[in-house]
Amino acid sequence: MSNNKKLVEAITSMEEDFAQWYTDVVLKAELIDYSSVKGCMVIKPAGYAIWELIQRQLDDMFKETGVENVYMPLFIPESLLQKEKDHVEGFAPEVAWVTHGGLEPLQERLCVRPTSETLFCDFYANEIQSYRDLPKLYNQWCSVVRWEKTTRPFLRSREFLWQEGHTAHATAREAEERTIQMLNVYADFYEQVLAIPVIKGRKTDKEKFAGAEATYTIEALMHDGKALQSGTSHNFGDGFARAFGIQYTDKENKLQYVHQTSWGMTTRMIGAIIMVHGDDNGLVLPPNVAPVQVMIIPIQQKKEGVLEKAEELKKMLADFRVKIDDSDKSPGYKFSEQEMRGFPIRVEIGPKDMAAGQCVVVRRDNGEKKVVPLTQLKETIQKTLEDIHRNLFDKARKHLEGHTYTATTMEEFKELAEEKPGFIKAMWCGDRECEDAIKEKIGVTSRCIPFKQEHVGGTCIHCHKETDTMVYWGKAY
Amino acid sequence: MSNNKKLVEAITSMEEDFAQWYTDVVLKAELIDYSSVKGCMVIKPAGYAIWELIQRQLDDMFKETGVENVYMPLFIPESLLQKEKDHVEGFAPEVAWVTHGGLEPLQERLCVRPTSETLFCDFYANEIQSYRDLPKLYNQWCSVVRWEKTTRPFLRSREFLWQEGHTAHATAREAEERTIQMLNVYADFYEQVLAIPVIKGRKTDKEKFAGAEATYTIEALMHDGKALQSGTSHNFGDGFARAFGIQYTDKENKLQYVHQTSWGMTTRMIGAIIMVHGDDNGLVLPPNVAPVQVMIIPIQQKKEGVLEKAEELKKMLADFRVKIDDSDKSPGYKFSEQEMRGFPIRVEIGPKDMAAGQCVVVRRDNGEKKVVPLTQLKETIQKTLEDIHRNLFDKARKHLEGHTYTATTMEEFKELAEEKPGFIKAMWCGDRECEDAIKEKIGVTSRCIPFKQEHVGGTCIHCHKETDTMVYWGKAY
Repeated sequence: MSNNKKLVEAITSMEEDFAQWYTDVVLKAELIDYSSVKGCMVIKPAGYAIWELIQRQLDDMFKETGVENVYMPLFIPESLLQKEKDHVEGFAPEVAWVTHGGLEPLQERLCVRPTSETLFCDFYANEIQSYRDLPKLYNQWCSVVRWEKTTRPFLRSREFLWQEGHTAHATAREAEERTIQMLNVYADFYEQVLAIPVIKGRKTDKEKFAGAEATYTIEALMHDGKALQSGTSHNFGDGFARAFGIQYTDKENKLQYVHQTSWGMTTRMIGAIIMVHGDDNGLVLPPNVAPVQVMIIPIQQKKEGVLEKAEELKKMLADFRVKIDDSDKSPGYKFSEQEMRGFPIRVEIGPKDMAAGQCVVVRRDNGEKKVVPLTQLKETIQKTLEDIHRNLFDKARKHLEGHTYTATTMEEFKELAEEKPGFIKAMWCGDRECEDAIKEKIGVTSRCIPFKQEHVGGTCIHCHKETDTMVYWGKAY
Repeated sequence: MSNNKKLVEAITSMEEDFAQWYTDVVLKAELIDYSSVKGCMVIKPAGYAIWELIQRQLDDMFKETGVENVYMPLFIPESLLQKEKDHVEGFAPEVAWVTHGGLEPLQERLCVRPTSETLFCDFYANEIQSYRDLPKLYNQWCSVVRWEKTTRPFLRSREFLWQEGHTAHATAREAEERTIQMLNVYADFYEQVLAIPVIKGRKTDKEKFAGAEATYTIEALMHDGKALQSGTSHNFGDGFARAFGIQYTDKENKLQYVHQTSWGMTTRMIGAIIMVHGDDNGLVLPPNVAPVQVMIIPIQQKKEGVLEKAEELKKMLADFRVKIDDSDKSPGYKFSEQEMRGFPIRVEIGPKDMAAGQCVVVRRDNGEKKVVPLTQLKETIQKTLEDIHRNLFDKARKHLEGHTYTATTMEEFKELAEEKPGFIKAMWCGDRECEDAIKEKIGVTSRCIPFKQEHVGGTCIHCHKETDTMVYWGKAY
């Protein structure tokens, strides 16, 4: 590939400068562009098409569990945002405020939604009267705004796209079950669609969502050993219901508060795809979210019959997302360009292949190249796409496992944090002071208290108090 | 139905009070709810599901013409909004301004996008260098904000959902062709998907979009004889390109300005569906956008085998959007409720039907009821859905034709406008003064200069100057 490389503008190597490599890929694969609005990005066709595939598949998974989509207003009156005190404390410092509508000042400031708990609660307070109205299982796809100081494409931006699910239930138990159910949907989506393994667990109180009783999370490990919080699911108990007066009459005609949940995933997922699967040739897309799964590249395309044959292959592969690159660039340039864009399979077809009734199939994930008789092409593509998914997942799993360490003393902890990027498992007593001290002394944050607990020691790594709780720690995006 | 009617809260009759009827339908069919944010609505599951069906089908039509989706920021810096002078004059009075981000005042105010021409232009100015970069055929699905004083669900709200397409072309001719092409997509969508006939034409200069060289429109006629502007497509010429410096080098290596278009349709479409097809029993949904096309209502559902049979029918009809209403309400109540929601077909199945190997199929559009052998059910449903679409379209077309009048004198014009709600065709010289005078004296606005011109006179109805131009006039939402 080295010759072709020169044809595409080179990108920084991952090992040399991971942050620069990320930015290069994001821009050169044409996923986004910066905009004149500080901290906001333009999502370009190649990036948005990935988001559409994510949306459609995740939405189907939601709907299978009975979730319905709705749309709430973009604005939240200041008084509404203030109804739940933890929530307003968490979000008020980072919201954008609308103070004028047209030429007139507003009587009450409106914030641009940073998340919509307060709007859903306001709505549910009117909508829910009786146990017959429960559960409510609503979701919306929209954009939200959080006035971040430092921003990075997909990972942290002032505006981002996401879905936010908001449910209301008759009992605490149902709410807890839904919280876990949606976390499992997220984990399944990450593994089955994005080919990214995750650690499922609960956030510590320090790291939980503003206003939540419990926050659950899936944490993924990026290629550089940093963690990415990838999806969260919150159980609110009846806290918001009490603040907003969301009550229903139960079967015994008694007034009860509802129990609520919320859960969200964002365009950040695209950042995870890049940082888990990408390589020094650019993006590597998992087949399920690749806008183009097979790119057909005609060789000597001006020769008679070549483009017609390419069209024929495209029709043969109509079950997949297929395109033909018949631009006037050289084949080598096209190869590099399609590698940069991360499309899973490239099919080369030229006069010699045609004569032999075959074509060349090249995998993006491992560069493997094989000659395939046209009679077996469709079947081969199907199998190869499945195999690419499996291979990407396995590689990512091995990377995660190979970069997960155990610390039993603070010295060991510090050494690992400094020298071995990845997750570090260590015991913790549950006290906020120890968590804060670990952050200060070691430079890592608690990622989650994993559901799959291991007994890597009997005492808190910091205060040595006896404990059964093991925590994943790490540096995070 | 009169007995069942009482079971569902009655709605105002259309003839009695059309505006109240509209509000009743919108609320009782559970399409929207009002929110605590003045002028913004909550789109509930029944309403949002219609929007999702609209989105998916319209988006497919866009993509067939080569359009790609992107996402631009929600905010527009004040200086960017001001770059094109007609545009800023048109929109500045009705935008919402963000003045604070977090706890700090912003250095420059940001408006919440009322439409995104300025953002696309800013983006295109960087993105487009050479003729090879053209055309750009981008669209986005998002919400926009316009600070309206009086609002009505779906028809006029401070925030609404829409799509906005923005294209850039090498030549004026290509831009004009794209403008017309997208207008035709809109008209086809209205007729083929929503079963609503439209008048296609050009807006007068007075009514055109702020910054456009020409605005084309599709105008539909509501049941009450008022017009609804239903989709617009604008040709900007090179006006925005000059304001934003969007230039490319052509094949002869000369610097040229691009020519641009934009085109949009909104959640207003749902208002059109209601006001064109609805009746005194509630909503009537065209089959292509009905979230439920067939509602199966089991009769005596506690009797053995009835619910199982209903499930069997549901499976048999898996090609359609089918649901079973197995709630504990009475069949009569369910009938009225499903009528209110506007689902095209109801299938009744009870023990007697089961014994006879048949079921009862009832059409929402005309109340027609027929007994259908189960062996023919699938085929019957397919045909009936097609027939309902055709019938809805024919009825709407007859209504439009039956409420389109011709005026040749100002007296006749005035009388028609006062006594015959509908479109009025009349000749116009093209002068703004006459258009203004007609609005003042007659109380109607120019809806469009239709592509299909008719010679209903030889002189302007107001100033009697000779003219060939015929205009559709009317009262409008």
